[in-house]
Amino acid sequence: MNAPLPLATAIASPTEWLLDEKTRFLNHGSFGARLRRVALAQRAYQDRFEAQPLAFLDREGPALLRAARLKLGSFLGMNQADFGFTSNATDSVATVLRSLRFEPGDEVLTTDHVYNGVRQAVRHILAGSGATLREVPLAVPATTAGVEATLAEALSPRSRLVLVSHVTSPTGLRLPVERIAANCAARGVDVLVDGAHAPGMLDLDIAALGVPFYAANLHKWLGAPMGAGLLWVHPERQPEIHPHVVSHNVGLGLATEFEWQGSRDISPWLTAADAVAIAGELAGPGGWPAIRSHNRALATWVQRMLCQCWEVEALSPLDGSMLGSMAALRLPARARERFPSPAAFLEALRGELPVEVPCFEWNGEWLIRPCCNVYNRAEQYQELGQAVLETLA
Amino acid sequence: MNAPLPLATAIASPTEWLLDEKTRFLNHGSFGARLRRVALAQRAYQDRFEAQPLAFLDREGPALLRAARLKLGSFLGMNQADFGFTSNATDSVATVLRSLRFEPGDEVLTTDHVYNGVRQAVRHILAGSGATLREVPLAVPATTAGVEATLAEALSPRSRLVLVSHVTSPTGLRLPVERIAANCAARGVDVLVDGAHAPGMLDLDIAALGVPFYAANLHKWLGAPMGAGLLWVHPERQPEIHPHVVSHNVGLGLATEFEWQGSRDISPWLTAADAVAIAGELAGPGGWPAIRSHNRALATWVQRMLCQCWEVEALSPLDGSMLGSMAALRLPARARERFPSPAAFLEALRGELPVEVPCFEWNGEWLIRPCCNVYNRAEQYQELGQAVLETLA
Repeated sequence: MNAPLPLATAIASPTEWLLDEKTRFLNHGSFGARLRRVALAQRAYQDRFEAQPLAFLDREGPALLRAARLKLGSFLGMNQADFGFTSNATDSVATVLRSLRFEPGDEVLTTDHVYNGVRQAVRHILAGSGATLREVPLAVPATTAGVEATLAEALSPRSRLVLVSHVTSPTGLRLPVERIAANCAARGVDVLVDGAHAPGMLDLDIAALGVPFYAANLHKWLGAPMGAGLLWVHPERQPEIHPHVVSHNVGLGLATEFEWQGSRDISPWLTAADAVAIAGELAGPGGWPAIRSHNRALATWVQRMLCQCWEVEALSPLDGSMLGSMAALRLPARARERFPSPAAFLEALRGELPVEVPCFEWNGEWLIRPCCNVYNRAEQYQELGQAVLETLA
Repeated sequence: MNAPLPLATAIASPTEWLLDEKTRFLNHGSFGARLRRVALAQRAYQDRFEAQPLAFLDREGPALLRAARLKLGSFLGMNQADFGFTSNATDSVATVLRSLRFEPGDEVLTTDHVYNGVRQAVRHILAGSGATLREVPLAVPATTAGVEATLAEALSPRSRLVLVSHVTSPTGLRLPVERIAANCAARGVDVLVDGAHAPGMLDLDIAALGVPFYAANLHKWLGAPMGAGLLWVHPERQPEIHPHVVSHNVGLGLATEFEWQGSRDISPWLTAADAVAIAGELAGPGGWPAIRSHNRALATWVQRMLCQCWEVEALSPLDGSMLGSMAALRLPARARERFPSPAAFLEALRGELPVEVPCFEWNGEWLIRPCCNVYNRAEQYQELGQAVLETLA
């Protein structure tokens, strides 16, 4: 299996991106990265605001936000009126949990692959309600059918809501959200998808997934400026859902209520729509499908190559059927014999190689999760493979 | 009474600000305005983040945020550990209301000078709790003693929390927060101050006010980028208060919990501290006290001049004892005979004069609220006075 070639279009050029080229940046998954043109687009909005604050925010703002929602809705499969902007996916998840009313005994189900920030948010919001958060273990190596079956079996009469990642954060696995949604719908259980990593990584048609609630980030794989999230809500469920900060626009409908959560910089939301167009254009005729398939092919190759290099078992099928643009891998077992913590290991690794890659403990295992985007090159992962071996030598 | 002279230092030069000079900008109160150097400071943070996202946000972020809190705390009278950053004051107010537990029958008191966004937020959060929001009318023309007495008399055994603006939004009045705090403390009633307009406008010593909760904006009179608010909480009350979006930092203390509300752009918070230093420096040896006293003197002059020009009664004493940097005025009564709405009047006014000034209905009266900052000139308010008369002629 050969590494995929870089895209032959401008978007693959590191000079189009703002990242410091001295670092091997294999961590697009944490906070994304911005194209230069995206940053310029944001600054143009900020400049307009600063020159005429009221004209921009009060008088032009609603039309600008609607236009941005139309473009993003078209890209991600949403009606513009059916989603609101938030700061990030954790914000969106917390919004749903705070808006729904739970009864004592209700159960919110999630998996042990849940993002820790979301885990903390949900636990905090449920505390005192009498409802509980139960984490269903999803075994690794994972299979799509196994995930579906495990979650279906975990449902109980007390289950009120299933909170499931579209792409899991610690393990980078693409979960079968449509199938989970169908099983939950058959049992009358709500589903809230944490799509923190999904926009830009997966070919999304959010309204077609069959779930009532979808939370997402636009500042990761879609390439928007930081602080751009969204919450999509099925039209029938919109009357239940309100932002944390309800303000002037209360009662004007979901999208409009979320437009005004007190005074804030709306440029990340507006620029998100531009980021779709800019990246699509810089990707040439292949557009976003070319970006997504490049990244997935690279992640699939990285998973196999590093499993061989480190002699570790993969967390999911080697055909990449559960991967998007990230491949989480077990570190060789001797890592935890040699280092007191993943952070200590990472520090030593960064002494070998100027690299940015997430590394953490998950379910008693030490994982590393290289991310794959168009500015990355296969050699960077080969360097990572060798540097890890040298760090552990 | 003569108009105060502009400050003779760089900060008074419109070229130091990003505002379009073609418009008479008399609306600093809505979203503030930025100095060029403040915008550059923010962009420097954003550039550092984009070059090294993990280094900046994960590794340097906590120390940068702490340093910003130290500087802001020193300027506003807060220990750095006793406040958290938010998006805006409405966000901060909503945070307190969501964190406290109300019982059926509890009463939250505010005044009929409350900011409408805050009114909507509080009503929404209290809905379903059995607690109610009661708005105490504060008569105009207002006096400091009258406000204090009215609020003291309004307290009842059901009163749980008094939500009071430090500077009222529709009417621009500085309320006697220390006295209100003392009266409420004697009755065992909590006070939440909405200081949306206070930082940069008033000489603040927040921890000395004697209240448990203080919400504020940094992007208005302090000059921070949009999206910078704070919530100060008395140390004894901090265990009760958590951000809407609790995440990784849960349980690490108020300031640290608020540092991480999911991934977002922290540059408005960091730049707020720089804005204090930049404006202080550009104001010359007089520093911030010179800015504040200029603005208040100008607002006091504007109130008197426009009351004479329009032959209307002032909303507060003509000595400016209840003013900060804004003067809200009644429009001549014929405004509502000639125009169907304040918005229609404002549109006609803007046909006469390129001006940005808030104008709205409040308690059945049409008010206009010119704001006074160092980049403004006395002539702009004289032009406003004449343009209003011409619009109504």
